[in-house]
Amino acid sequence: MSGSKKISRRDLFRVTGAAGAGLALGAGGHAALRGAAEARDAGDGPTALPGLQTVAFRGDHQAGIATAQQEHLHFAALDLVTQDPSEVREVLRAWTEAAARMTAGRPAGEENKSEFMPPEDTGEAFGLSPARLTLTFGFGPTLFEKDGEDRFGLAGAMPGALAPLPPLTGDVLDEGRSGGDLCVQACADDPQVAFHAVRNLVRISRGAAVVRWSQLGFGRTASTSKTQATPRNLMGVKDGTSNIKAEDEDLMDRHVWVPEGEGPAWMAGGTYLVARRIRMLIEVWDRVSLGEQEASIGRHKYSGAPIGKRDEFDPMDLEAKDENGEPLIAEDAHVRLARQSDEEKILRRGYSFTDGFDAERGQLDAGLFFICFQRDPRKQFVPLQQRLAANDRLNEYIRHTASALFACPPGAAEGGYVGEGLFGRA
Amino acid sequence: MSGSKKISRRDLFRVTGAAGAGLALGAGGHAALRGAAEARDAGDGPTALPGLQTVAFRGDHQAGIATAQQEHLHFAALDLVTQDPSEVREVLRAWTEAAARMTAGRPAGEENKSEFMPPEDTGEAFGLSPARLTLTFGFGPTLFEKDGEDRFGLAGAMPGALAPLPPLTGDVLDEGRSGGDLCVQACADDPQVAFHAVRNLVRISRGAAVVRWSQLGFGRTASTSKTQATPRNLMGVKDGTSNIKAEDEDLMDRHVWVPEGEGPAWMAGGTYLVARRIRMLIEVWDRVSLGEQEASIGRHKYSGAPIGKRDEFDPMDLEAKDENGEPLIAEDAHVRLARQSDEEKILRRGYSFTDGFDAERGQLDAGLFFICFQRDPRKQFVPLQQRLAANDRLNEYIRHTASALFACPPGAAEGGYVGEGLFGRA
Repeated sequence: MSGSKKISRRDLFRVTGAAGAGLALGAGGHAALRGAAEARDAGDGPTALPGLQTVAFRGDHQAGIATAQQEHLHFAALDLVTQDPSEVREVLRAWTEAAARMTAGRPAGEENKSEFMPPEDTGEAFGLSPARLTLTFGFGPTLFEKDGEDRFGLAGAMPGALAPLPPLTGDVLDEGRSGGDLCVQACADDPQVAFHAVRNLVRISRGAAVVRWSQLGFGRTASTSKTQATPRNLMGVKDGTSNIKAEDEDLMDRHVWVPEGEGPAWMAGGTYLVARRIRMLIEVWDRVSLGEQEASIGRHKYSGAPIGKRDEFDPMDLEAKDENGEPLIAEDAHVRLARQSDEEKILRRGYSFTDGFDAERGQLDAGLFFICFQRDPRKQFVPLQQRLAANDRLNEYIRHTASALFACPPGAAEGGYVGEGLFGRA
Repeated sequence: MSGSKKISRRDLFRVTGAAGAGLALGAGGHAALRGAAEARDAGDGPTALPGLQTVAFRGDHQAGIATAQQEHLHFAALDLVTQDPSEVREVLRAWTEAAARMTAGRPAGEENKSEFMPPEDTGEAFGLSPARLTLTFGFGPTLFEKDGEDRFGLAGAMPGALAPLPPLTGDVLDEGRSGGDLCVQACADDPQVAFHAVRNLVRISRGAAVVRWSQLGFGRTASTSKTQATPRNLMGVKDGTSNIKAEDEDLMDRHVWVPEGEGPAWMAGGTYLVARRIRMLIEVWDRVSLGEQEASIGRHKYSGAPIGKRDEFDPMDLEAKDENGEPLIAEDAHVRLARQSDEEKILRRGYSFTDGFDAERGQLDAGLFFICFQRDPRKQFVPLQQRLAANDRLNEYIRHTASALFACPPGAAEGGYVGEGLFGRA
């Protein structure tokens, strides 16, 4: 990534420590804090993982989209409880400031000036690597209009592409885990770093916003960089073989980033995020034969090769027939229906999840927290999912249990904040 | 750890691939499977993490106790639905076999002999490192007697040390997340590897057992080896500074492993596991001043040093007074009350957790999933927790929301299974 540099919180604490002479932290203070970071760095904890990097927060686009996908996700959707747009602006300003600090491996706020004040940072990431933390912010349709009400005077600025997703066949959506006025996508190679970031952002927004739902994810289910191999999802199959790779800037420009002149000016350089919580019916899937699993996907389970081929990246032959004249790749196989026309191409960036076992039936509540980015969901995710929802053989083994849509504005320039194009400089 | 060796699933697939000539896996088969592992190994996914090790499953003691603590936890408690002790024995045999395979980085079962059978392994760990996976099994009090009933004819073999924990002041226990007839503690440096192991063990026990509850954990909150630095828990403070380290075999023998002649013979070389789901009232804690946080703990937040000292490992002076003659470390400070007499010493091996935000109040459901191992909970965890429950200043900021107790038998010998001393050779 541009802006990627080997650095640890330790180095940054050195800087703040030097600048912070005279601050009262009590015995121990900065010197000991540096010591702690060094101790963990020398140990075999998370700091020894290959994540001693930072990803630049500011730029033309928000980070966490074209960034090579990290291993862990903490996603939170919030609802605003304030009626005052200037308070929303202040939240976004404060989030931007804290995000720039945390993604650089620094605490969320300044060092404490007094022991009588709460800490400006909650502390659980002290001594950990920045772990390539990225923080990506988005605005839901309800920020612009909720129950017919234009709460913040923003209805006129709502992009057409942010129209709520239409009902999709087979959806069994939990409204409490869907939607939201604002979102934060935290991705990092250390889950404690992602958790810390969301916790501190939520803390900062207190009084103006409350968390509506959140989702933890592990084990990325896509590759967004040519440096990454294709991972497996919880069905045990390779997922996202033909994903857009961030290095293909032409494809990113054509399919992911909103060009100038398309929709409102404040979204130029931004993108739209669709999140779908897809529960897998694990117990059913696990009892299905290998042959049926492969036929449902349209790929061999172990190699990831299209049925009848040997290698994951062998071209898919949708016309090929078996000895009985039946299509080798079934008409309702997932890969056949999930093939995207050029106009539909999306950038996938999802994660596996498990929220334990549901109490009623002792079954795993686990699956794929699907996230994708695109220029216009009406032309990309929606037609793609409509086709899948109607005929995909995988539908027997999955349920879409939650859904959300957010407009992710462009990145913040130096001195600016995320969403400035919408909320203004004032 | 003894038995630690750099190895990847790739190498093992080579072996099984060679042995498995003639098995029908469909086009792609083993060769492609090896290719997939190699691809991920070469990439920057989890296989590039420093976890290309295996921890021996068989031995005098079960692994996952004296093992240097891994970064991720998946813990499951199960209830038996069979009435037949021989079925329980078969589950334990099958678990032992699958655990020995998976901890060595191999699939849970043999390669498929037919595409008409479900896969013997669910597949999501193919190509991942073994990630120091350990699987630790335990027996709850209800295995021996439940609602006054001796279901399996084992009541006479129940150890006195497995007596259910007495009610503890302040407990607000969710019974649905407490107890269980059996437990599996899966620890690994890759959460997908831990998830995969629990999923496959649950699958194997289907028909005989159902999951009662499970818990994911991240960010270990203790160090169990001298090679590890002290981590921070979600209060942002260093946790477990004075924990037993596995290298201190004398301490392990004195405080953790059950000696021969103490309780029933089948527990010699075993240990008792206490699990407590300790929810932190994060929002309250985050609003408390730095001074009050430090006074509640009795340590400086950043350095981890005892109040009035500079370094984490400086000796604690419980007699020291401030200029007003007040104790520097408050009478109700956590560290003062948590100091263990020699007889009470425990091995802590807990993890941070978050289960998202509770829907009612939008507050974080997060904290510490406390796990400790000891020779006799009646003399170790119980008196320690009774003292803390009565007076610990931290009680304002935490709630014990679930509790469980398990007897972990000794390790399985070659050819034997975990629990053989209890269920017999038959």
